[in-house]
Amino acid sequence: MSKIYGAIEAGGTKFVCAVSDENMNILKRVKIPTTVPEETMAEVFKFFDEDPVCAMGIGSFGPIDVNRKSETYGYITTTPKQGWANYDFLGDMKRHYDIPYVWTTDVNVAAYGELKRGAARGKESCVYLTVGTGVGGGGVINGQLLEGYGHPEMGHMLLRRHPEDKYEGKCPFHHDCLEGLCAGPAVEARHHGVKAYDIPKDDKDWEIEAYYLAQACMTYTLVLSPEKIIFGGGVSKQEQLFPMIRQSFKEQMNGYVKTPDLDDYIVHVELGDDAGITGCLLLAIEADK
Amino acid sequence: MSKIYGAIEAGGTKFVCAVSDENMNILKRVKIPTTVPEETMAEVFKFFDEDPVCAMGIGSFGPIDVNRKSETYGYITTTPKQGWANYDFLGDMKRHYDIPYVWTTDVNVAAYGELKRGAARGKESCVYLTVGTGVGGGGVINGQLLEGYGHPEMGHMLLRRHPEDKYEGKCPFHHDCLEGLCAGPAVEARHHGVKAYDIPKDDKDWEIEAYYLAQACMTYTLVLSPEKIIFGGGVSKQEQLFPMIRQSFKEQMNGYVKTPDLDDYIVHVELGDDAGITGCLLLAIEADK
Repeated sequence: MSKIYGAIEAGGTKFVCAVSDENMNILKRVKIPTTVPEETMAEVFKFFDEDPVCAMGIGSFGPIDVNRKSETYGYITTTPKQGWANYDFLGDMKRHYDIPYVWTTDVNVAAYGELKRGAARGKESCVYLTVGTGVGGGGVINGQLLEGYGHPEMGHMLLRRHPEDKYEGKCPFHHDCLEGLCAGPAVEARHHGVKAYDIPKDDKDWEIEAYYLAQACMTYTLVLSPEKIIFGGGVSKQEQLFPMIRQSFKEQMNGYVKTPDLDDYIVHVELGDDAGITGCLLLAIEADK
Repeated sequence: MSKIYGAIEAGGTKFVCAVSDENMNILKRVKIPTTVPEETMAEVFKFFDEDPVCAMGIGSFGPIDVNRKSETYGYITTTPKQGWANYDFLGDMKRHYDIPYVWTTDVNVAAYGELKRGAARGKESCVYLTVGTGVGGGGVINGQLLEGYGHPEMGHMLLRRHPEDKYEGKCPFHHDCLEGLCAGPAVEARHHGVKAYDIPKDDKDWEIEAYYLAQACMTYTLVLSPEKIIFGGGVSKQEQLFPMIRQSFKEQMNGYVKTPDLDDYIVHVELGDDAGITGCLLLAIEADK
């Protein structure tokens, strides 16, 4: 019998678990609501008990501890989500299944999936930015997951304000950081409570959104020099934003750094909701080598 | 006879060339003024002709092309420095010496030197930021030089302005980007032409400088999560700045991301002017393996 591999994309609202063969064919998959660890993890273990896998990739919501030198390596750390703060996620997995694991963020696994099978196929580097209820970013550099002392928190960088934007921002830590200005709740609050998908496509607020997302792309370019910047998440499904982001990027960068053609550089996620699970499975297979 | 290795730290005002044995003992070294390629490179070749090395690390001023898929890989590209734009630096070297090379930026080699032998010894990642006549940044992530489509240009990120800073900025591309607000010439222009080292240590302008450098450190932390951020270059010799940068970093980050203790995180270059040459030699020795 051939080997099978496991994946957990652990999100703040749901967990997706999957099992694949060594050719990445998904054999089964389940969605489990993220309630409290005792409930959610009981379902996770039930799923994997049925078909023991030989290695597993986990991409988790965070913040999480990815520092192997840390005593809390493998923990979800300071999340406000009830029950999950200081939860020893990886430790709990290891107590159930003594197999190789890859442990990183939900956005890092999505970046890895896109690099190997999605929009950044054939590249060695990319940034994956999801803009939804929050803003999160992950990356791959020189073919490896972007990690250091901890993991990136690309959604919280400070920005130069758009001159016509009077919105004060929604981040409890930084007010008007990228997430505080650009995540879905900020878009809606700026527009007096109108849902993002009800805001007209030609509204000035989209220009403001594009300006900030372009500035974020500029910073990622200047700091990381990735080969692709890939957008996922709800707000990024606003198709009208992409040409505006590229145009604003061009204006703000002002020709200083050479990039790939912007239509090929600032792009949509290609694997959609499967980016994360794909990344987890690829990392699981590699961990078994 | 044991093997010897070569290093070129190619700066905009001078080239430093060195030869070492396999234990990194420097056997000889020369400084050559950066005039025009014909003159400067003639001296470089004369230096290495005397003692042929078996591999070489080159850290060059830029922008340079580090993209191996590019037709101009190995070139200095768009520098305003007369004679050096579109100069095929690496190609010229290879025509003289058919040996393995490592080719990257001056700040990347300094980051590598500091990682292996300086302030970031024992780590896998760091950022090296030099603040002098310009602002340049390099990095090492997962033990590898930080490169992607091109190389980082960390000095040109846009910033949130300090509320009391009215200076318009000096960057010809972006006006008030990090370099435009924080490099030596900007510090002097803000202070009506007074040289940086003549500005009193308790002047408000240093608080402004620290605010911007702290914001840069915050962005590097959020995007890269390095284990150390290392400052080199002239302005960073202002000792009073370091506690101020750390304090401002703490205030701006507002506890969102865990970092090492700030006294161990935002630090001075340890190898001083030797960081770059050390990195070049280490990379040369590794290229020969």
